[in-house]
Amino acid sequence: MERIAPRTLSGFMELLPCDQIKMEKMMQILRDTYALYGFAPLDTPAIEDARILLAKGGGETEKQIYRFQKGDSDLALRFDLTVPLAKYVALHYNDLSFPFRRYQISKVYRGERAQRGRFREFYQADIDIIGDGKLDILNEAEIPAIIYRVFRGFGLRRFQIRVNNRKILNGFYAMLGLSEKSGDIMRTVDKLDKIGAQKVSDLLVSDCQISAEQAQKVLAFISIRGTNAQVLSALEGYLGQNETFDLGFAELTAVTQNLSAFGVPEENFAVDLTIARGLDYYTGTVYETTLLDHPEIGSVCSGGRYDDLAGYYTEKALPGVGISIGLTRLFYVLNEQNLLNSDLPCAPADALVIPMTSDYTGAIALAETLRGFGIRVQLYGEQKKFKQKMSYADKLGVPFAILLGEDEIAAGKCSVKNMLTGEQLCLSVQEAAEHILNTLSSKQHALILE
Amino acid sequence: MERIAPRTLSGFMELLPCDQIKMEKMMQILRDTYALYGFAPLDTPAIEDARILLAKGGGETEKQIYRFQKGDSDLALRFDLTVPLAKYVALHYNDLSFPFRRYQISKVYRGERAQRGRFREFYQADIDIIGDGKLDILNEAEIPAIIYRVFRGFGLRRFQIRVNNRKILNGFYAMLGLSEKSGDIMRTVDKLDKIGAQKVSDLLVSDCQISAEQAQKVLAFISIRGTNAQVLSALEGYLGQNETFDLGFAELTAVTQNLSAFGVPEENFAVDLTIARGLDYYTGTVYETTLLDHPEIGSVCSGGRYDDLAGYYTEKALPGVGISIGLTRLFYVLNEQNLLNSDLPCAPADALVIPMTSDYTGAIALAETLRGFGIRVQLYGEQKKFKQKMSYADKLGVPFAILLGEDEIAAGKCSVKNMLTGEQLCLSVQEAAEHILNTLSSKQHALILE
Repeated sequence: MERIAPRTLSGFMELLPCDQIKMEKMMQILRDTYALYGFAPLDTPAIEDARILLAKGGGETEKQIYRFQKGDSDLALRFDLTVPLAKYVALHYNDLSFPFRRYQISKVYRGERAQRGRFREFYQADIDIIGDGKLDILNEAEIPAIIYRVFRGFGLRRFQIRVNNRKILNGFYAMLGLSEKSGDIMRTVDKLDKIGAQKVSDLLVSDCQISAEQAQKVLAFISIRGTNAQVLSALEGYLGQNETFDLGFAELTAVTQNLSAFGVPEENFAVDLTIARGLDYYTGTVYETTLLDHPEIGSVCSGGRYDDLAGYYTEKALPGVGISIGLTRLFYVLNEQNLLNSDLPCAPADALVIPMTSDYTGAIALAETLRGFGIRVQLYGEQKKFKQKMSYADKLGVPFAILLGEDEIAAGKCSVKNMLTGEQLCLSVQEAAEHILNTLSSKQHALILE
Repeated sequence: MERIAPRTLSGFMELLPCDQIKMEKMMQILRDTYALYGFAPLDTPAIEDARILLAKGGGETEKQIYRFQKGDSDLALRFDLTVPLAKYVALHYNDLSFPFRRYQISKVYRGERAQRGRFREFYQADIDIIGDGKLDILNEAEIPAIIYRVFRGFGLRRFQIRVNNRKILNGFYAMLGLSEKSGDIMRTVDKLDKIGAQKVSDLLVSDCQISAEQAQKVLAFISIRGTNAQVLSALEGYLGQNETFDLGFAELTAVTQNLSAFGVPEENFAVDLTIARGLDYYTGTVYETTLLDHPEIGSVCSGGRYDDLAGYYTEKALPGVGISIGLTRLFYVLNEQNLLNSDLPCAPADALVIPMTSDYTGAIALAETLRGFGIRVQLYGEQKKFKQKMSYADKLGVPFAILLGEDEIAAGKCSVKNMLTGEQLCLSVQEAAEHILNTLSSKQHALILE
């Protein structure tokens, strides 16, 4: 037979079992947390009509998308979960109740140039709340609570949810008569951390062609820092000059004032006037989330409020708010930085049952009884030497090996060996189950250690 | 803005939230059950190098596969989970411990002609146990226990796991000197249920060109019926004539004899000599699973033992045993036949918290506290009339609406309304949480009602 060398495509993540189990735990935390806030799971096709995915068209999307023909059909793989959501809500509008809350954790596809830590197939973990015509600001205020619970669920403490409001930025630039240049200005201002205030000021004058006085005001504005109360207080000084600004201020206040009721500590939240996100989609609150000890990773959870989800597909006004976590990249970075808890159990089973007699009946019944207690049990039937069997248990990383020989069977017991401590106990099945469950539950394992 | 009519491609399942929640429950049952037997989760890319997916090549696969270029790459979407597993095991051989047990629940793609109940994108839920060189028969014996626990987990009782062994069939045809015609004969014999014994006999003589006497023996053999013990006893009469047959008999006996230790009731299991499955891949035990009240659905869980998983990619001998559930089709059929429990809770939340004051602080804190108890809570902030709020709660199907007005806040209580019974109680937050959890847990909801 002619053989072909096995390979996995570059830019496609494929994990070994231990890492995959950690990834699954992250997904389970996301599903559970999103469900806790009343989001329904959604699962749209990975393939859509290419014209639908590209309704907005243009730019990078067009270049990166995987597009192909099958028969007469012009097909493409989704490149995000927002466009399929827009299609879904427009298509199933009459069958949905609004506000419609959905989460989706699915793979998306972008044929980017492959580079370390960049993926062509990757999971996004999105939530969105879609209103029918209107959507109350309370939904925007709730988003930081969800982000907080997700990242605390992962085991993280040192992260910060940064919030701004696009209406404040748009209103401020309008006050200066710079509405039409706001896009250019925001892109320049975005370099503040990298090149410093003076160079940003120079660029604003030279490239954006605004006056030195205007540049001065822009820099003074985005340099507002401090506690949430201090920032809001400084913003109050701008009130009364522009309606959009005033509305944005009211929204930002509403998002900020209920933080403690939502259980989000002050240190995990910051009003940050430098956050802008994409320019043409978001219209109100915008969110970014950074790991304080790893600013180089950039935002690990971003999103915001938009006014028109599905304008390409329906005349209905469908405002919403949503966030997205780039899960594959987040997992890759956490793993690479050794932030994933190496003590996290990642064996495929809690116990390996090893029969020591040629008749397996007792071992089978023992394994099934333990499974009835919810213990994950692998039954080992291979004809190997004892040492090889124990070496297999070691390699799998199972916390317990359970030996069942003639003596044990005669006594109605089994030998439960703790693979970590080496302790071996002769126990009844009931005792073995309790012993294993107690040992497993006594260990609280955070996914991430800080 | 020019609009494009939203649509989902034909042959691609896209569920409404209530159905999706039921589908998620099926997936959770599959994940939990597979994990209980020590299978590790696996998640391979949906896109692979086309030459790897098509290494075996030929026939329907080549026609149905979604294949496309991106840059210089010849890519394709996986059409099953077995070929990617073969690639994975060959590629990561040195990093895996054998026997290697993995489950994968993922979408696969086949561009078949669209027809009712046939899908071009569908979930398969697979398990496989791969040995390195050898694999003990105990693994084959364990498979029916896993199938049994999965379908009982779904709530089904009236199903039957049908088992045969390819060595018995191959050995039997060898005894008759018909080894080379065994493929044709099996395909003809497969029509027994549809066209009856006489017509099968005629076809065997006319089309397969075997003698009337041989046809007689074939029919007698596959007509062996009865309890497992009766079938095995009848097979004993053929022992001693062919080594392959004798080996198959020993294997079938081993798979059958431990059923009660594995907790599989006799009525859910049958040795069935008419089961053959695909011709060139399986080499030992083969499995099919049928719903007794819905034979028209065909097998809902099939698989078997194979000797050479990854011969196209590696010289290592990698025997294994596996089964696959066509989850999308199974869900579709169960739903269409109204077998899914209509009382199954499918609301995205357990409770809708409705603030009755303009200050939402109390309602937010209440919602967060209830979430701390694991209760799925949606907070409702829209500015609507009370009647519309309750109508929304109704449409979502939430079991509880929780009202928080000034009176409740002053008394440190909340009004918990059971949406099913109409009962409304004024409770403290702690009492509310207990009341809701007790009510929810008192209802045992099987996914499927028979």
